[in-house]
Amino acid sequence: MNRSAAPAPFAASFAEPVGSPIRELFPYLSRPGMISLAGGYPSPSLFDAEGLAQAAQQAMTQGAGTLQYGATEGQPALREALAQQAQERGMQATPADILVTTGSQQAFDLLVRVLIEPGDTVLVEVPAYPATLQALRLAQARILPIPMDAQGLQTQALAELLASLPAEQRPKLLYTVPNFSNPRGTLLAAERREALVQLAVQYGFWVVEDDPYGELCFDDPQGQPLAMPPTLRAVGERLASSGHNPVIYLSSLSKTVAPALRVGWMLADAPLLRRCTVAKQTADLCTSPLTQAVAACYLHSGRYPATVQRARREYQRRMQALVQGLSEGEHSGIRCTRPAGGMFVWAELDRSIDPQQLFDAAVAQGVVYVPGKAFYPANPDLHTLRMSFAAPEVAQIEQAVLRLRAAVKAGTPP
Amino acid sequence: MNRSAAPAPFAASFAEPVGSPIRELFPYLSRPGMISLAGGYPSPSLFDAEGLAQAAQQAMTQGAGTLQYGATEGQPALREALAQQAQERGMQATPADILVTTGSQQAFDLLVRVLIEPGDTVLVEVPAYPATLQALRLAQARILPIPMDAQGLQTQALAELLASLPAEQRPKLLYTVPNFSNPRGTLLAAERREALVQLAVQYGFWVVEDDPYGELCFDDPQGQPLAMPPTLRAVGERLASSGHNPVIYLSSLSKTVAPALRVGWMLADAPLLRRCTVAKQTADLCTSPLTQAVAACYLHSGRYPATVQRARREYQRRMQALVQGLSEGEHSGIRCTRPAGGMFVWAELDRSIDPQQLFDAAVAQGVVYVPGKAFYPANPDLHTLRMSFAAPEVAQIEQAVLRLRAAVKAGTPP
Repeated sequence: MNRSAAPAPFAASFAEPVGSPIRELFPYLSRPGMISLAGGYPSPSLFDAEGLAQAAQQAMTQGAGTLQYGATEGQPALREALAQQAQERGMQATPADILVTTGSQQAFDLLVRVLIEPGDTVLVEVPAYPATLQALRLAQARILPIPMDAQGLQTQALAELLASLPAEQRPKLLYTVPNFSNPRGTLLAAERREALVQLAVQYGFWVVEDDPYGELCFDDPQGQPLAMPPTLRAVGERLASSGHNPVIYLSSLSKTVAPALRVGWMLADAPLLRRCTVAKQTADLCTSPLTQAVAACYLHSGRYPATVQRARREYQRRMQALVQGLSEGEHSGIRCTRPAGGMFVWAELDRSIDPQQLFDAAVAQGVVYVPGKAFYPANPDLHTLRMSFAAPEVAQIEQAVLRLRAAVKAGTPP
Repeated sequence: MNRSAAPAPFAASFAEPVGSPIRELFPYLSRPGMISLAGGYPSPSLFDAEGLAQAAQQAMTQGAGTLQYGATEGQPALREALAQQAQERGMQATPADILVTTGSQQAFDLLVRVLIEPGDTVLVEVPAYPATLQALRLAQARILPIPMDAQGLQTQALAELLASLPAEQRPKLLYTVPNFSNPRGTLLAAERREALVQLAVQYGFWVVEDDPYGELCFDDPQGQPLAMPPTLRAVGERLASSGHNPVIYLSSLSKTVAPALRVGWMLADAPLLRRCTVAKQTADLCTSPLTQAVAACYLHSGRYPATVQRARREYQRRMQALVQGLSEGEHSGIRCTRPAGGMFVWAELDRSIDPQQLFDAAVAQGVVYVPGKAFYPANPDLHTLRMSFAAPEVAQIEQAVLRLRAAVKAGTPP
């Protein structure tokens, strides 16, 4: 009886899994003096550490409920505060319409579980957030890219694609980041919001509106806060017939308060929310009631608006340092978007530049970004890249621009 | 263009999902004066609220790292403390062998993603933890029950089943709670641990050793702490040939420190751990670095051993109040196990009792438990039930016993 069999195999999706392409850049980040434009991390200097410490202290005095298991749907005080955020963003919401999730990453994961089966068609704006692409790949979805331009997802191209798809390829859902998208930084135009939701109603697919960055809008040239177009969910409230709103709204406190809370949330119609709650029971039972209590105390403390305002101002300064540094003066070879909010700048390289040579030269100069390949489900445009201006200070960004310019020179044939 | 299509359908597993059978009891729990033996919650009076408040305060002074995103694998200080816990339980472990998870519920969920495809065979000791059964059902696994007795999972029955299975039904994994199982409270006998791991090596299946309760062992009649048999993972270290240990060890701080931290952990060989880390990237990116820092500060504070010791003593008192109350004096009609640790007592009813009538009578008397049906994947023994002695105080348990006895009388034909 000493025979032994080979271990049972992994599921097909995990036979040779590929990790996050952004995590693969980690080894470069630890090099001394490296300036990173690669991560998607908010600026640690903008965390309200004092306010969060007070919130944590307050949360710990709230008795055993803060230490015990909690309801899968989330803690009542936090759901109330998040419903209020939703209302302030122009959407109808009661606490019962909110599911608290372990970051908005979990919210998307729950949606994939509840909606997607292998072979199902999913529409994704491209270039797209890599973790979304990875979740869909692992679920063996059929990913169809929808192109973007400076106004965001191209709804005309979407309409043409939908008209051409045979019935058995009818999409289950469409994923978009309408506000300051990752990686492109674009704001979806108001009329395209209408068109997108109309198509969702017409063809019966769900729209996942992922909105972690909407609060981080910059001032316009007159110094006034940007007037934000309505959320897709709000458009859905108006357009959806028969009481079914096809838009699922996701947001998060990770970019505005602190990622370490792992507090995201979903606002959706009851039949979907109920199923996501069942999925969450087996995923992690509940999001930490301790961090939920910290988040609720923080949101109730009244410090949130000033914290967000500080982040808006500072990110705008950093964005300007990056975009102006690359666009002013001698041609840099790198054409940037100029986002109206968020954390990311998308760039296209002159076709004379070899993307891999540029990346190597940039690393040698002491600056790292994410090559564009990571953001495409297939057929990447290799002459693209993503830079985040959120984490480095303005002085570092100015230094990064000099290094990028030097890298272009080093990587361009004379 | 005002046509509208029906919404895209949910995935088959979520067409009509059934929530947790234990959560369905929630409406009863809120009745005034109700004593609940139903939940699986640890006692809030045993939380070290003062020590955790100090740990939280300390964590908040550790700088921005406590507020930022963290590595998917977990925070270094916590992985170190958990590796030490593993060593103290007789297993080989370095911090690199530990994956921190959002509760051990997530650990099992990651394993299901990485290992199970629809139709795969999974072995489960029965009666079993309902959330495990639910996760496997949603993954469309083929669940084969392995019976238990007072010594735990019956390895002889397992051996016979394995010998009879055709090759295409070769199981991917076996799930067991060897220490004070939920719901049966049994401790798997040492010789069965050897036999189980030998079968795993011989037939090439993975063993999921879920161990949230192992630290909660009671004193023996001489007042000495129970001598615990080796973990399955430790047996695997010795038996496994070719360097592959088939045992995946899961544990958690939820039952010993506080559930709200949502800190669980997995100890497994590198190929599996790496894949679970990739799965976790799309599940929730990382477990809260804030609660991880609180947990690490708490474990380093030196208060953990006394906290666990206090829980051991108190749970033993509560268990005795329940088991002796039901077994002494006039026959109660309810035959209990007498667990040597953990949080649960499993009971069989006299066949003369109608299980549904008893449940209704118990609720009418003001006591609620979980009917046994929830713990079976199929063919439940309806004359069973689970009682948790962890959450109510001794005086409440004594009252609960009186109510249960009254309910039996009310529900038994004269």
